[in-house]
Amino acid sequence: MAEIVECVPNFSEGREKSVIESIVDEARKIKGVKLLDYHPDADHNRTVVTFIGNPKDVENAAFNMTKMASKLIDMSVHHGAHPRMGAMDVVPFIPVLGITMDECIKMAKRTAKRIGDELGIPVYLYEEAASIPERKNLAYIRKGQYEGFFDKIKYDEWRPDFGPQSMNVKSGATAVGARVPLVAFNVNLNTSDIEIAKAIARKVRFIGGGLRYVKAMGVRLEERNIVQVSMNLVNYKGTSIYQAFEMVKMEAKRYGVSAIGSEIIGLVPMEALIDCAQYYLKVEDFTMNQVLEKRMLE
Amino acid sequence: MAEIVECVPNFSEGREKSVIESIVDEARKIKGVKLLDYHPDADHNRTVVTFIGNPKDVENAAFNMTKMASKLIDMSVHHGAHPRMGAMDVVPFIPVLGITMDECIKMAKRTAKRIGDELGIPVYLYEEAASIPERKNLAYIRKGQYEGFFDKIKYDEWRPDFGPQSMNVKSGATAVGARVPLVAFNVNLNTSDIEIAKAIARKVRFIGGGLRYVKAMGVRLEERNIVQVSMNLVNYKGTSIYQAFEMVKMEAKRYGVSAIGSEIIGLVPMEALIDCAQYYLKVEDFTMNQVLEKRMLE
Repeated sequence: MAEIVECVPNFSEGREKSVIESIVDEARKIKGVKLLDYHPDADHNRTVVTFIGNPKDVENAAFNMTKMASKLIDMSVHHGAHPRMGAMDVVPFIPVLGITMDECIKMAKRTAKRIGDELGIPVYLYEEAASIPERKNLAYIRKGQYEGFFDKIKYDEWRPDFGPQSMNVKSGATAVGARVPLVAFNVNLNTSDIEIAKAIARKVRFIGGGLRYVKAMGVRLEERNIVQVSMNLVNYKGTSIYQAFEMVKMEAKRYGVSAIGSEIIGLVPMEALIDCAQYYLKVEDFTMNQVLEKRMLE
Repeated sequence: MAEIVECVPNFSEGREKSVIESIVDEARKIKGVKLLDYHPDADHNRTVVTFIGNPKDVENAAFNMTKMASKLIDMSVHHGAHPRMGAMDVVPFIPVLGITMDECIKMAKRTAKRIGDELGIPVYLYEEAASIPERKNLAYIRKGQYEGFFDKIKYDEWRPDFGPQSMNVKSGATAVGARVPLVAFNVNLNTSDIEIAKAIARKVRFIGGGLRYVKAMGVRLEERNIVQVSMNLVNYKGTSIYQAFEMVKMEAKRYGVSAIGSEIIGLVPMEALIDCAQYYLKVEDFTMNQVLEKRMLE
């Protein structure tokens, strides 16, 4: 059975095409890696890349991209709307097929060590690869951003997992981790009242007492003059897409509002959607081994 | 992009393990072919095999299995409950990925020619590969079965597409064709009244004025003391699974009966299920390119 890992590195350049292409080329160059998508954002001055492949090649591509980013990007002159702390800001490994989270954690640790040792960049392990619970949360690690790191890295609690305990002026610091695939799922409502979307989001999300693996916020869709509950499902095997959908509909009822549509943003594992088909069709005794494409990938 | 074809040959032996294994081995032996499933049925005295792979290797595996079946099976002493006309009874090629129906029709014709020329078996092209409209229907070709073929093959209208216009006593006749994947989908009802399942089946199926690509019948599930509408969706891209499900529920209402579950039998293409998730979640602007596994197979 094939082993396939997904990697979604974010680097701090979203404007200079030649720089972006040179960094992305490091993934293109490796034969066992398939580049699925890359999305430069000029406002954020940041590019999100998605690629997949066998573990060894994915690891090498992630390291080579980090090396190229550290060569071409100078963080001391970087500006952009998105929080960031390094030239290669964050590198998550995501188990996709025939591979466990534990193996992805090992990939993260090996890559982090190489970045620390060979490139002299302080590296923090995050999410499933985190060495202490606080560092599971990327936002916690990145607090204060590039500029704030020069001071905070002096403290014992900010000793990096790999690399020097001092800031790399040109390349900043990098977070490397392992996580399950995210599903970005939004539900559109037939109202323009943003307060309703916000209220529903608060009831649906984990921190509001809602579904365990759901993050949610209310968003206005200006062009359509409607609002949306915008969600991140951080573990679709734990909380299903249909659960999030049905819970939004349930909360919407008290405001006399309906779900008129939904969106899935970016890539989604087939299992997350097939799970919904099984629920709504009430399928008994189904296994993913009945899915032709699952068998083709074995 | 990879080209993948599915092949589901049915041969006339479902009891003798050594014979079954020898025939299935012809698929196992070919490197570019993946055996997904095989299901011997002793009552039917028949085995259904499912394998996938690149067109060339799938074609060779189909021919080699037919050759081995013609060597090991003697139709003149064959008995079984399922209608049959040959040692290798039927060989359908099914486009799965990166390949058109036209290419599968060409595969069917090449394979049929080899079986006719090299094995001296009369071969009839069926379904999408049929040379005349009547032969689209396998049941029409197979009418009278092995025993009846000795007489009917003498008539002009029964001239085979390939091979001799005379019966092969040991191997019978073979049908080779191309078709879209079938989805076998059954809906369970909370009643034991078989007449209700039959009445619903009649309204849902194509020949009763129902959905274009649905065949349906009422079936009793003795063990659970309930009945079922058992359906074949002969083109899931034309008629969706959710349409069949919702139409059964709609018809069930007039009898005060509900759908309490459903079954998907055997293999199903992911798109057939993802289509249902899209419908029930009201997903806007989704494309199959957002499905990770789809991209992995490109």
